[in-house]
Amino acid sequence: MKIGLLGHGVVGSGVRKIIDDNHIPGVEIKRILVHTEKEIIDKSLMTTNVDVILQDPEIDIVVECMGGIEPARSYALRAMQSGKNFVTSNKKMLASSFSELLKCAKKNHVTIGYEASCGGGIPWMANLERIRRIEEIQAFRGILNGTTNYILSRMYQEKQAFDAMLKDAQKLGYAERDPSDDIDGLDVRYKVALSCAKAFGRMIDVEQIPTFGIRNIQKGDLEYGREIGCVIKLVGKANLDGMAVVMPVFVKQEDIFASIPLNYNAIECASASLGLATFIGQGAGSLPTAHAVVQDVLDVVNGVATLQDCHLATVNNTSVEGKYYVRTTQREAFEGYIEQEAKCGFLTKKMCIEKLCDLVRKSKDEAIFVAEVMK
Amino acid sequence: MKIGLLGHGVVGSGVRKIIDDNHIPGVEIKRILVHTEKEIIDKSLMTTNVDVILQDPEIDIVVECMGGIEPARSYALRAMQSGKNFVTSNKKMLASSFSELLKCAKKNHVTIGYEASCGGGIPWMANLERIRRIEEIQAFRGILNGTTNYILSRMYQEKQAFDAMLKDAQKLGYAERDPSDDIDGLDVRYKVALSCAKAFGRMIDVEQIPTFGIRNIQKGDLEYGREIGCVIKLVGKANLDGMAVVMPVFVKQEDIFASIPLNYNAIECASASLGLATFIGQGAGSLPTAHAVVQDVLDVVNGVATLQDCHLATVNNTSVEGKYYVRTTQREAFEGYIEQEAKCGFLTKKMCIEKLCDLVRKSKDEAIFVAEVMK
Repeated sequence: MKIGLLGHGVVGSGVRKIIDDNHIPGVEIKRILVHTEKEIIDKSLMTTNVDVILQDPEIDIVVECMGGIEPARSYALRAMQSGKNFVTSNKKMLASSFSELLKCAKKNHVTIGYEASCGGGIPWMANLERIRRIEEIQAFRGILNGTTNYILSRMYQEKQAFDAMLKDAQKLGYAERDPSDDIDGLDVRYKVALSCAKAFGRMIDVEQIPTFGIRNIQKGDLEYGREIGCVIKLVGKANLDGMAVVMPVFVKQEDIFASIPLNYNAIECASASLGLATFIGQGAGSLPTAHAVVQDVLDVVNGVATLQDCHLATVNNTSVEGKYYVRTTQREAFEGYIEQEAKCGFLTKKMCIEKLCDLVRKSKDEAIFVAEVMK
Repeated sequence: MKIGLLGHGVVGSGVRKIIDDNHIPGVEIKRILVHTEKEIIDKSLMTTNVDVILQDPEIDIVVECMGGIEPARSYALRAMQSGKNFVTSNKKMLASSFSELLKCAKKNHVTIGYEASCGGGIPWMANLERIRRIEEIQAFRGILNGTTNYILSRMYQEKQAFDAMLKDAQKLGYAERDPSDDIDGLDVRYKVALSCAKAFGRMIDVEQIPTFGIRNIQKGDLEYGREIGCVIKLVGKANLDGMAVVMPVFVKQEDIFASIPLNYNAIECASASLGLATFIGQGAGSLPTAHAVVQDVLDVVNGVATLQDCHLATVNNTSVEGKYYVRTTQREAFEGYIEQEAKCGFLTKKMCIEKLCDLVRKSKDEAIFVAEVMK
């Protein structure tokens, strides 16, 4: 089958390299969309005109590795309207427009592959689909952002400050110049939304997922963790009953999640007969992410790509209760809900995530730091 | 498709439960072979006569969960000769007769599914196959035996002796009354051989895989590990160049493998673009193992089961070098190869696995304990 590749950056060039290096039967990149004339090395392969790809009847699969919402979203719609299957690594675009894109795919009898949108090279979506052949997924949780895992790991191990470690991550190319999507948990939020689609068949509005990042984390928060035998990880999780949240979590040092190093990701799901299944791998980077893209392409080529049914659903964070560590200068907002002092912060009484969100809103503290404390 | 199920014990009854509970479209158990007339609860379903299953032209898939080599092997051959696909959880039988069974499958244009033979519910074989659609697997290593992982975990955490923990494992049903296959590493050896088939397309004679178990482990060995920041895990591993071994390993406490709890299993593989991918889950037990069996059945039902090509290959342990911890009363056998004292034992100089095996043989010490020390 012939592929039209949109974007030749970190992931796009990885896709090209994997397909070129491995001579995979039945897979050929026919055209690559690049930004500027300057990037065109091979005229028969590269173009700056997307129509050359979208209007080519020989191209069966459009692979989008451009990033950003527009024009990626419009190209996705046009590709599928032309009867082409669509594979993407672009979690932001896909999570923001999932319902529209899914409807378009169904109407045009094509599939959308998004293995690469969540957990980089980890075969997460494929294994969720596989488990669902037998039974429902009950819940999942994941360390889904390499940048924040890198920052948190180094802060803990070297007792360093957040700002210094963020700068290091930027130097190494792990964090963007504007790191907000990573450190505020928005990147994980997209991944949670897309995982809910695959795991539960539920399409949820990303805006509904309460999201607490690590922007305000301080050394003292990690030191409190050390005292109670925990490290802090940024975790995205959801369950079949509608719970969905992104939040730092104090994870016990014996927990597998505690040993996920630097820029690795880990995701685990629970189901009735299989129990807990955990998947660990490189959560970002050119080749691992491109590997996931090529897997999606091969599912289309082998005729095993499926497009699951999804229904619109509402996040419901009223049923799952936990205890939370909070550090804030606006303690009065939490009056009546404080259980005990905890170094620079305090631990709350047991409450649902919804209630926690209310109290955080009430505090109006933009420098607040919140983390779940696991039993 | 209609299934004939051979065996209604721990795994077999799990297979039945999963298929019954989930009403999976296109999957129906037509007949179950049980040992004795007493076990027949439902006469239309159960039989003690295997011919009723093997000669039923309506049965498309024979699922074997009997354990032991015979009569399982003969039934497998007869099933495939009758054009039936074959799915098994029986690592001992399959690893011992792999070449014969594969030949029979090819001749009769059927497949052999053996996801459940290695790592219980962990989707290990399926993911190896998936990665190999793109690139070679370079190496794998795994904690593949829940019984020994349970014993080693409790010995380390509670500073207990081997014999007491083995008895506990037997009480809990984790270990057999004759625990030799588990504690001598033979169970892991079968799994390494079958993983080599799936990962590298290499069929190796299990007898060729050097296998060191944990029968002779003592508290002092684990205490030495504690001193150097390591726990001991029984690890099976192999690579594309022909290395294959089963051996206790001192694993750094920060390593993901160190945090694999009790009866869980973990397996990881390395390949060019994906890098390291790790899979963790329940390595045994009725439902997790049965889940893997049903996945194989569904691959046949969905027409995506494949039978890979395998060639006979020889184990070659001369290229990979390591350092080893040895505790023996026959030190003279290691003269010239001892690098430093290590509590009750010593550390060897760097050597290949083949050389280590020579020295161990030379020592003639039946109470010797050997473990690799990771860098």
